[in-house]
Amino acid sequence: MKPCEEEEEEGGAAAAAGGGGDPWKECAEVAVQLALRAGQIIRKALTEEKQVSTKTSAADLVTETDHFVENLIISVLKEKFPSHRFIAEESTAAGSKCVLTDSPTWIIDPVDGTCNFVHRFPTVAVSIGFAVNKELEFGVIYHCTEERLYTGRRGQGAFCNDKRLQVSKETDISKALILTEIGPKRDPATLKLFLGNIERLLKAQAHGVRVIGSSTLALCHLASGAADAYYQFGLHCWDLAAATVIIREAGGTVIDTSGGPLDLMSCRVIAAGTREMAMFIAQEIQTIHYSRDDEN
Amino acid sequence: MKPCEEEEEEGGAAAAAGGGGDPWKECAEVAVQLALRAGQIIRKALTEEKQVSTKTSAADLVTETDHFVENLIISVLKEKFPSHRFIAEESTAAGSKCVLTDSPTWIIDPVDGTCNFVHRFPTVAVSIGFAVNKELEFGVIYHCTEERLYTGRRGQGAFCNDKRLQVSKETDISKALILTEIGPKRDPATLKLFLGNIERLLKAQAHGVRVIGSSTLALCHLASGAADAYYQFGLHCWDLAAATVIIREAGGTVIDTSGGPLDLMSCRVIAAGTREMAMFIAQEIQTIHYSRDDEN
Repeated sequence: MKPCEEEEEEGGAAAAAGGGGDPWKECAEVAVQLALRAGQIIRKALTEEKQVSTKTSAADLVTETDHFVENLIISVLKEKFPSHRFIAEESTAAGSKCVLTDSPTWIIDPVDGTCNFVHRFPTVAVSIGFAVNKELEFGVIYHCTEERLYTGRRGQGAFCNDKRLQVSKETDISKALILTEIGPKRDPATLKLFLGNIERLLKAQAHGVRVIGSSTLALCHLASGAADAYYQFGLHCWDLAAATVIIREAGGTVIDTSGGPLDLMSCRVIAAGTREMAMFIAQEIQTIHYSRDDEN
Repeated sequence: MKPCEEEEEEGGAAAAAGGGGDPWKECAEVAVQLALRAGQIIRKALTEEKQVSTKTSAADLVTETDHFVENLIISVLKEKFPSHRFIAEESTAAGSKCVLTDSPTWIIDPVDGTCNFVHRFPTVAVSIGFAVNKELEFGVIYHCTEERLYTGRRGQGAFCNDKRLQVSKETDISKALILTEIGPKRDPATLKLFLGNIERLLKAQAHGVRVIGSSTLALCHLASGAADAYYQFGLHCWDLAAATVIIREAGGTVIDTSGGPLDLMSCRVIAAGTREMAMFIAQEIQTIHYSRDDEN
């Protein structure tokens, strides 16, 4: 498999180097540059009036900025890496298939925390993940307002700006801070399950539960050790892809809510600093059904 | 009533000026300096190991930093303003009476978001409010990790760093972002009510509910227009005092959960950008009983 189109086309020393131990280096560097550029656009847009539309529910929002940033990121990447594939939030909403193949694939959320963004609640991120042979190679997440850049590359560790990330080692729920998100479905049965899960964890004496409105940034808090577990039903592969690499490289566990291996397309996840904590959450919470990303 | 002890003792031009249109200017300036100094200490402590104790419940935490910062703030203020009174979180936990009189009174939370602080979850603040004749004169809140200083003085507006704050004008719950906090009680009946209130607001189609773990900073988001309403049962006067001035000066409403006037000692509050939004929340939510701050 070719590392990065541009290097291949140039056929120079860079391509040779790229074909060696670090085949996706240029891709990762481009992802960082694009995340920073997108972040700048989002920061500016945060101060402006917005046209808001809804998608799957009244709480599932989209703005011109989501479309603009996604188009920008994909157009740059398509030009640089024409054979790569793309899975991205707004393209999927517009009908693109959401299927992960063995091809190098970019998995993009242009504005994670759109509801926050609409309200100018300053917890908004750009998330760019990259998978090859269905394996996540790197992830780049940029916290737009706090200007924190989270990066993780398979086998090379995870960082926030220049600081190496390390997950919490907590195994005891009664000393744990837990993160979750509501998810787009708001029917009475879903709400009962969502709130029931929080109730179970608080009854198990978790220190607290936080809901910050950005799955991606919640997962970054997990990677940095600022929380001990995260779980959610109803998130998407573009919320998860980049963060999964970052958390694993920070020493954490990312699994399915059943306790089995993560399925990136299953729209559900548990992430934790320790496997014990992840398995405890898996046993406590009840499943909320969402369609798979690759079923639509 | 004397404006600020030091000015009075010096008896110079400053005192004369202080006695005029801006009697609490020096107090407000000292509050800002102390909040910044406390913030520096908390930022440093965030990176260090902590000794954690519990207070009223397993989720009601306190650290050496809470005590250290509170002692620092009060000792500086007592020296500068010896006739002033103090209501502060850890002094109250240690048995000090929590009674608001007509005397100039400082109302202090040295570390708001102690559970976040313990977990290094970066949403932690210092809150310093000041009341005279039971009326709130100014509030200073410092977001320690993001280095954002929120200030409000009665009749003089509210600011985040140098930017004037303005609340949201939203009146429609179906376009609203709502903030709340869990509170220290975790018995099954309290949890049912807490989660039931979130359920009611989500069923009323609120865009979302956020729980960030710091009442004070949630109230600052409200003041800045990043959320449309905040409500809580089980917070304290030191969580509310500074933020109430800031929200009112940003054009917002701060009332009791019954819909009546705010009672700073009642351990419950609704704050909103508009009166309509505050009254809607008051009608929707069910009361969770907590003892008053001045009953203990």
